[in-house]
Amino acid sequence: MSVHLEEMLAACKPYTQQGQLPSYIPALKKGDPKHLGVCLLSCDGQLIQAGDCGVQFSIQSIVKPILLLQALLDNGVDAVRAHVGVEATGKPFDAINYTDQVLDSQHLNPMVNMGAIAVCSLIRGSSYQERFHRLLALTRLLAGEDARIQVNEDVYRSEKASGNKNRALAYLLKTYGIIQDDVEEVLDCYFHACAISTDCVGLARIGCVLANKGCQPGSQDPIIPPEYARFVNAILTTCGMYDGSGDFAVRVGVPAKSGVGGGIMAVVPSRMGIGIFSPALDAKGNSLAGTRLLELLSRELNLSIF
Amino acid sequence: MSVHLEEMLAACKPYTQQGQLPSYIPALKKGDPKHLGVCLLSCDGQLIQAGDCGVQFSIQSIVKPILLLQALLDNGVDAVRAHVGVEATGKPFDAINYTDQVLDSQHLNPMVNMGAIAVCSLIRGSSYQERFHRLLALTRLLAGEDARIQVNEDVYRSEKASGNKNRALAYLLKTYGIIQDDVEEVLDCYFHACAISTDCVGLARIGCVLANKGCQPGSQDPIIPPEYARFVNAILTTCGMYDGSGDFAVRVGVPAKSGVGGGIMAVVPSRMGIGIFSPALDAKGNSLAGTRLLELLSRELNLSIF
Amino acid sequence: MSVHLEEMLAACKPYTQQGQLPSYIPALKKGDPKHLGVCLLSCDGQLIQAGDCGVQFSIQSIVKPILLLQALLDNGVDAVRAHVGVEATGKPFDAINYTDQVLDSQHLNPMVNMGAIAVCSLIRGSSYQERFHRLLALTRLLAGEDARIQVNEDVYRSEKASGNKNRALAYLLKTYGIIQDDVEEVLDCYFHACAISTDCVGLARIGCVLANKGCQPGSQDPIIPPEYARFVNAILTTCGMYDGSGDFAVRVGVPAKSGVGGGIMAVVPSRMGIGIFSPALDAKGNSLAGTRLLELLSRELNLSIF
Amino acid sequence: MSVHLEEMLAACKPYTQQGQLPSYIPALKKGDPKHLGVCLLSCDGQLIQAGDCGVQFSIQSIVKPILLLQALLDNGVDAVRAHVGVEATGKPFDAINYTDQVLDSQHLNPMVNMGAIAVCSLIRGSSYQERFHRLLALTRLLAGEDARIQVNEDVYRSEKASGNKNRALAYLLKTYGIIQDDVEEVLDCYFHACAISTDCVGLARIGCVLANKGCQPGSQDPIIPPEYARFVNAILTTCGMYDGSGDFAVRVGVPAKSGVGGGIMAVVPSRMGIGIFSPALDAKGNSLAGTRLLELLSRELNLSIF
Repeated sequence: MSVHLEEMLAACKPYTQQGQLPSYIPALKKGDPKHLGVCLLSCDGQLIQAGDCGVQFSIQSIVKPILLLQALLDNGVDAVRAHVGVEATGKPFDAINYTDQVLDSQHLNPMVNMGAIAVCSLIRGSSYQERFHRLLALTRLLAGEDARIQVNEDVYRSEKASGNKNRALAYLLKTYGIIQDDVEEVLDCYFHACAISTDCVGLARIGCVLANKGCQPGSQDPIIPPEYARFVNAILTTCGMYDGSGDFAVRVGVPAKSGVGGGIMAVVPSRMGIGIFSPALDAKGNSLAGTRLLELLSRELNLSIF
Repeated sequence: MSVHLEEMLAACKPYTQQGQLPSYIPALKKGDPKHLGVCLLSCDGQLIQAGDCGVQFSIQSIVKPILLLQALLDNGVDAVRAHVGVEATGKPFDAINYTDQVLDSQHLNPMVNMGAIAVCSLIRGSSYQERFHRLLALTRLLAGEDARIQVNEDVYRSEKASGNKNRALAYLLKTYGIIQDDVEEVLDCYFHACAISTDCVGLARIGCVLANKGCQPGSQDPIIPPEYARFVNAILTTCGMYDGSGDFAVRVGVPAKSGVGGGIMAVVPSRMGIGIFSPALDAKGNSLAGTRLLELLSRELNLSIF
Repeated sequence: MSVHLEEMLAACKPYTQQGQLPSYIPALKKGDPKHLGVCLLSCDGQLIQAGDCGVQFSIQSIVKPILLLQALLDNGVDAVRAHVGVEATGKPFDAINYTDQVLDSQHLNPMVNMGAIAVCSLIRGSSYQERFHRLLALTRLLAGEDARIQVNEDVYRSEKASGNKNRALAYLLKTYGIIQDDVEEVLDCYFHACAISTDCVGLARIGCVLANKGCQPGSQDPIIPPEYARFVNAILTTCGMYDGSGDFAVRVGVPAKSGVGGGIMAVVPSRMGIGIFSPALDAKGNSLAGTRLLELLSRELNLSIF
Repeated sequence: MSVHLEEMLAACKPYTQQGQLPSYIPALKKGDPKHLGVCLLSCDGQLIQAGDCGVQFSIQSIVKPILLLQALLDNGVDAVRAHVGVEATGKPFDAINYTDQVLDSQHLNPMVNMGAIAVCSLIRGSSYQERFHRLLALTRLLAGEDARIQVNEDVYRSEKASGNKNRALAYLLKTYGIIQDDVEEVLDCYFHACAISTDCVGLARIGCVLANKGCQPGSQDPIIPPEYARFVNAILTTCGMYDGSGDFAVRVGVPAKSGVGGGIMAVVPSRMGIGIFSPALDAKGNSLAGTRLLELLSRELNLSIF
């Protein structure tokens, strides 16, 4: 992997000034909008990085593919698909996915909040604490047994306090029997999940397992079945960047997931995982400088799968 | 390319009985629902085929990526993107893409009827006849200078006579200034485009140019710029199978476009183009046995780009 | 009827400067925004007027209740209700009344464009010219056999030339079989109907027949069955002022219909009909000063039916 | 008031078999679908009744006009209108009143659940218990100081336990700052309000105050300002019967409010209030036999305000 990461970072740095920190989760407003970091990890185990790669941030929506993986591991593809759809909703991340009177689970998408909350209820565990801890364990495993990965309690409390839209979505799920459990317990798992913190290296490691047919980069130890990695990568491509997914596909052309914490995890099948961090967001909630950097990387390294 | 096409065809044949011929375009009801054909053309020029590969059918919506290619060739990416969006609409093929009072061109998608009609008006030409003939010439060029490709006049007349939903969509485009020309002229171009007829081999050839970075398979002569091929492949992946695109991505995992004439054109980047024909459709308007056959082929030949 | 019309007119005159002439029908832009006229006709035949009562204007949407009356006279209540609904749509005048794939006639409302176009096809006649002439004859009859009432050809041509949204709505009606006839012929009848011209006195006369249980004011000769008058008055109350109907009900409290030509026809059951003209419109397409004047009149004369 | 109530009741009795008890609030399933009662109270104090007039039932949505009255008494018309709209939504009773990202308070309607929940937060009181007790006191006052009117605790608990859709609606209101208080407290007031129990006589008394310009029937003592009565009657006419309001206006023609407890309160301005009870509902949630009975009464007594 030969690439002038520092130069590309410098080229994208000015874009950090054009984005905005998210205002609806108070704890995220404390981020430093000037941060920009990137890490590439190839399937054969080479790692290169530049910029603010050691800064911890909450993964937010990037936990959605991990939630989906855990649900797949616990239930298999058919059972998961019976509970949530896979079609693009054509709507923003916190959309209410329906216009009719009756909510159809097939209109949910696991990459959109409402679907991701439904996915929480598919994870196995005798309590939602246990479900969350199994998810956290999977996250650490995917990131190379990184025990430093844990919940940012400040972010968790902030999300829980301000998460009324997610409460509304969860009560709709409950109204239509898509979740049966106590709404606040399900949401507690979801809010904890969104508040999991890592850095660019962590995201690159997780993305690389998805790129590497479910195997650990370097060692090639199998972590998750290859068909689950492929399933997740397909959904990331069609829906990973919310209602900016179509634009991202034509401009960058790889499976990816963004989070309002400023992270982006990109998956280049059979080649590498990429972790990016830059907390100033565009209007659709995706890291602005981060998306630009991925666009440059894609052109330079010819990453597009299309 | 070693694959037992005949066996796979036999395995999918029973599915032809589960689909339905489309009822809303009278001429298409005359098709033979038992037909099933498949053709694979690799980027190095190898061609294998099985089943009803010589049967001609109208390409219908498969003309949408070709319309988009012609508009890209005539205007470049930026001008095309200023006129139509690229996001998944989350809606069926003939959806009215908006709920608000003012129609925003960025809510259009070139793979959905309304957007494709808008794309017709982006093609250069002093008349809509000329625009159509340039499109027809491009279609023949992509299919290896196949002069047999022409309009099925019976289908054209049937679409024109029954195309009231498309008229409604076109008048909405005109209401909001997205098209300025005479609606019936624009639609005449669109109806002609949908009635272009070819066979599985034709579709495989067109798909292979998209797979082969814009170059002719075998000769490797450049036909279209590689960035336009990539652009089209990205949109096919996110929106090519209408509101079944997400399902198709997880089950098959390649850029593809279906038409209600029963055709599917699939693109396996850097490897091959695939043409399939089977006119009995599923509820979303995609060839039922054809989709199954692509699923088998994807597993057998490991085609998924994810 | 003792009311200081001139004083109330003077009080409302300043509001004529706050509204806007409609821009989407070119011929209507030629109106004089300073015009303001009002006419009251009591069920016992007393007529008082003030301001610009002799100015002719096109009735536009005020023809909708007359279209509905003609359809009721030709088909009866049950047949009309089988073809159009009566519920408020909660949407603006030119709304596309549906979000689903299939358009249900019960989602149409005869006071909203799409429903009114459908109503045109319910009027009896061997041609749409004949249908229109029957409508025109009814309009004249309701206005006291006023033969001066006729089509403003300039407005008609302007509507026909610019009516693309209505064309879209009509083609949707045709798509779903709600109208079967040629779209341009149906619309020609509709555009002619909207271009019928009269003055405040004409509107007051028509409104007074609706107020007077279907009888001519003064003579008490029956013109239309009382149950049809009641049917129309009910729909005017729930939907006559578009998505401003709720506000109009609490502020004024009488059945009324506005048109973008600047007219308002109000019906005070058992008491009087009111015609108002002032072409500067509010954001919802209702005459701004006219609505204010009706509010004053309602308070002064205690007109509210609630 | 000369009317053969018993005969009309007998004529409508068979319709009680065509409706359904509501299934989504368990406590309401215990009702007796054969019940049918009616009470008329004229503005001059005459009361006639027939059928099951002594049976208590929960008023459910019929509390909405009383909630609105209390908010008007506490804040005046302008302040209430600044917090909730008055336009028909064209949607069922528990609709989510928006399709966009941002919820606009003007899209709320106080006769639809979401708007009614917002109205709860407009009632004055140091706690939601106090707010509810002020509402209960107003309800009793309107019903002629009827101290027997109180909460059915069984129904209250059932609504609270099953009210997840209302929770979703309330959390959306909170998300957009339309309510600021604790959602469960606001809902506790709302669930208590819906569980207020009375009988046909109580509904007729409340309706008669609205019919009688805010004065007590018989004594003519002023209870509420006449303009508030008029305001409520206007909203009942345009929106009181949910998405069946247009049909009710043409068939019956008086302001009215239904509740899923089987009650209907009708207001005949300047003439009478009517209370009806029959718990088997039609598809839109309105008492089926009750609506039929009102239609008969309207024809027989010429009640329509149109």
